[in-house]
Amino acid sequence: MAFFRNSIFFILLLATAAAVELEADREARRRESDRVTDLPGQPPVKFNHYAGYVKLRPEQPQDQKALFYWFFEAHEPNDVASKPLVLWLNGGPGCSSIAYGAAQELGPFLVQSNGQLKLNDFSWNKAANMLFLEAPIGVGYSYTNKTTDLEKLGDKITAEDSYAFLIGWFKRFPNFKLHHFYVAGESYAGHYVPQLADMIHERNQNSSKDTFINLKGFMIGNAAIDDERDSKGMVEYAWTHGIISDKLYHNIMNECSFTTDSNSTNQTTTHCEEHARGFSLAYSHIDIYSIYSPICLSSSSTSNFTSSILLTATPPRIFSMHELWHKLPLGYDPCTEAYANKFFNREDVQRALHANVTKLSYPYTPCSGVIQQWTDSPTSILPTIQKLLNAGLRIWVYSGDTDGRVPITSTRYSINKMELEIEEEWRAWYHKQEVAGWVETYKGGLILATVRGAGHQVPVFAPQQSLALFSYFLSANTLPSTRS
Amino acid sequence: MAFFRNSIFFILLLATAAAVELEADREARRRESDRVTDLPGQPPVKFNHYAGYVKLRPEQPQDQKALFYWFFEAHEPNDVASKPLVLWLNGGPGCSSIAYGAAQELGPFLVQSNGQLKLNDFSWNKAANMLFLEAPIGVGYSYTNKTTDLEKLGDKITAEDSYAFLIGWFKRFPNFKLHHFYVAGESYAGHYVPQLADMIHERNQNSSKDTFINLKGFMIGNAAIDDERDSKGMVEYAWTHGIISDKLYHNIMNECSFTTDSNSTNQTTTHCEEHARGFSLAYSHIDIYSIYSPICLSSSSTSNFTSSILLTATPPRIFSMHELWHKLPLGYDPCTEAYANKFFNREDVQRALHANVTKLSYPYTPCSGVIQQWTDSPTSILPTIQKLLNAGLRIWVYSGDTDGRVPITSTRYSINKMELEIEEEWRAWYHKQEVAGWVETYKGGLILATVRGAGHQVPVFAPQQSLALFSYFLSANTLPSTRS
Repeated sequence: MAFFRNSIFFILLLATAAAVELEADREARRRESDRVTDLPGQPPVKFNHYAGYVKLRPEQPQDQKALFYWFFEAHEPNDVASKPLVLWLNGGPGCSSIAYGAAQELGPFLVQSNGQLKLNDFSWNKAANMLFLEAPIGVGYSYTNKTTDLEKLGDKITAEDSYAFLIGWFKRFPNFKLHHFYVAGESYAGHYVPQLADMIHERNQNSSKDTFINLKGFMIGNAAIDDERDSKGMVEYAWTHGIISDKLYHNIMNECSFTTDSNSTNQTTTHCEEHARGFSLAYSHIDIYSIYSPICLSSSSTSNFTSSILLTATPPRIFSMHELWHKLPLGYDPCTEAYANKFFNREDVQRALHANVTKLSYPYTPCSGVIQQWTDSPTSILPTIQKLLNAGLRIWVYSGDTDGRVPITSTRYSINKMELEIEEEWRAWYHKQEVAGWVETYKGGLILATVRGAGHQVPVFAPQQSLALFSYFLSANTLPSTRS
Repeated sequence: MAFFRNSIFFILLLATAAAVELEADREARRRESDRVTDLPGQPPVKFNHYAGYVKLRPEQPQDQKALFYWFFEAHEPNDVASKPLVLWLNGGPGCSSIAYGAAQELGPFLVQSNGQLKLNDFSWNKAANMLFLEAPIGVGYSYTNKTTDLEKLGDKITAEDSYAFLIGWFKRFPNFKLHHFYVAGESYAGHYVPQLADMIHERNQNSSKDTFINLKGFMIGNAAIDDERDSKGMVEYAWTHGIISDKLYHNIMNECSFTTDSNSTNQTTTHCEEHARGFSLAYSHIDIYSIYSPICLSSSSTSNFTSSILLTATPPRIFSMHELWHKLPLGYDPCTEAYANKFFNREDVQRALHANVTKLSYPYTPCSGVIQQWTDSPTSILPTIQKLLNAGLRIWVYSGDTDGRVPITSTRYSINKMELEIEEEWRAWYHKQEVAGWVETYKGGLILATVRGAGHQVPVFAPQQSLALFSYFLSANTLPSTRS
């Protein structure tokens, strides 16, 4: 019997090993078929890149959700093994990390007006292996086979599905499992990034070797993190930058309630709606995301991609009642998004990227046109940030200081709310002999850094400085404090 | 007797007429000899320009003070007779309207790094006949034969001497006596311009036809007008633009007294000096006059022209105790002033401009190096502005909104102090389909307009918008409120 039992055990072991090997083979083949080789308009590069889908719950065939990714290995092939792996997330909610982050901001290929791809000299894959994800389902090429799923979206499901994506992605790219892993993002990714980091951190506690994710920290820029403080900061920013009248400023301050505490008496008067409308109008003819830039006047570039979204989740909440805000989601550039929109709708591009394999019933848009509601969005992410700081994660918060949407005043007020002890007080940091911005370091490891003269999408306005900032974040080195 | 008396009268009349004619002839000859014909590096133009000295009190030979001017007729010869006459004044105190206003900002010839003159497509002489003045004595080529005069300078003597200059200049250019006359300037000219306007207004009451000046209004930009409010606004601007720390901001607000009322208890603590030092340091490596511009790193362009001035008159006063502020006078651009400095020191240039005829014992500098003290400088110019507003003058105040030295917050706070009734509330104004800035109109005729994304020297950063603003000011037309 002992022999028999041992034999059975041995056979089972063999079978399991074979199954694991089979799955590994299958993933290796999937990885190979995800390799991008013929992307239209792409300049030649030395690094590999991959794009495709990860099914979130392949063991549940009735749940056909799949998230789309585009992954760029580090710029120098010799660096791939040693550089960390970074997941980049754009915000919205509902906006694509591929159409924005990869194709317009910090990826190696920037989509041009003529449909060509321009090599980005300051691509973040010069510092890391960069993974861009379209999440949740309904964003970009990411899909579900149940349209009712689109009605159940919110922060929680986004984190859950992004986590499931990562587990699947690491199976396909097992070589990156031991790499230091970071999450980065901007705007409403101020929600996504800490929430995903928190989920990874929690699940890592009871994970197997297979599902452990080697998370080391995260970085968020011009990030929505606390509705109350973000709102106050936004109004103050508008006044001190000459955008709203004295009267409107005082009216909002006196008659709108910024508190998000559901227990407190809501003191918002009926006049607040009118003031919110005035505030929206003040920004209606400049680019709130980059207040000193010219706006895109070409009508072909003006989109309403996002007009249907954010009905329930537009921080700052005091303004969410007003429809004009729905045209001002967290995170897009009105001048270049049209190029990305056109590019990712091309069949040859989709073929090259192994995208849209299920033939979606709607066109690709940089921000989702099919997500109709957003069911959950905490008013503050600060508790999550505090928890992860306590857990020892590296956390950097940055802010392009010419953004009116999630301005530096908002971020300062929000971080202040944490009442962290200052380790090194606010000081200039330098890049190429010029002040690139200012930085403050807090005990426990949190860093707040600004990028001078940069709008909401920092890498668009300050590509060199943003790559430098990203590199310092990854290396955990101190930002340069002197000109030389 | 009657005949005789009549004859005497007739002879006297003839003699007087002859004397007047003689003086007119002399002035006409002076005017002709002031004509600039061979300015090195000058591109060909259709308009006349003149440069030279006006002796302030020619009837007192012992008082040999002379102010230097450069006058550009309107760009189109056909416009000379119909366009108004505008006097432009730079600030400092001690900085030259020729080295800055004319040669770097809004004149027709902008001095380049190679010593050539570039035609300015947006020169303000496209809208007016433009007169640039170096005042008071000790500034630029303007001189005195008594060096002790240099110790007695201040706001009062500047206004007095500038007025005397104008009386003399109009004798030389009588054709412009009936033109509508305006004064414009920036920075510390927030003192000069209203003070000179006030003097003209007062003296006009008892003037003869010869000395009447047809003053219609004035315009001041990024102008020091009220020390208390300017200081408060400057500190708030620095915090909301991410330049100073939370701690420093609160320290200054709590421990520095902004009041300039000599009757009030001065609550400034001894710590205030330390905070002022911190504030200066925060700005020491960026250009306070244009906070998002790169600074001029070439050591040859960095000057200490102004280090000896402003010992007594550096608004904001709370910072004047600290020496670092003496390196931050009101109004210069660190990158281009070196070109002007070199250009106006050239002998061929001085010959062409009929300048430096007395062979000054010191070199030409854009801001004076020989003015050692400033004896009077009122803490607020608002009463003068209010008085002239009541007198019916057209008064426009403008502000480039990326200036940290006299920022938009300062100007807003200062104008607010006047408690004027609003006629048309803060709204965007447009140029070439983009928001050029914001504007508010007050009852009584005062207008406050911003220029979006422009630093302290507005015409440098927004030449098109500033020429547009100037033209609207001159025509008293409403700034465009729509894109089209």
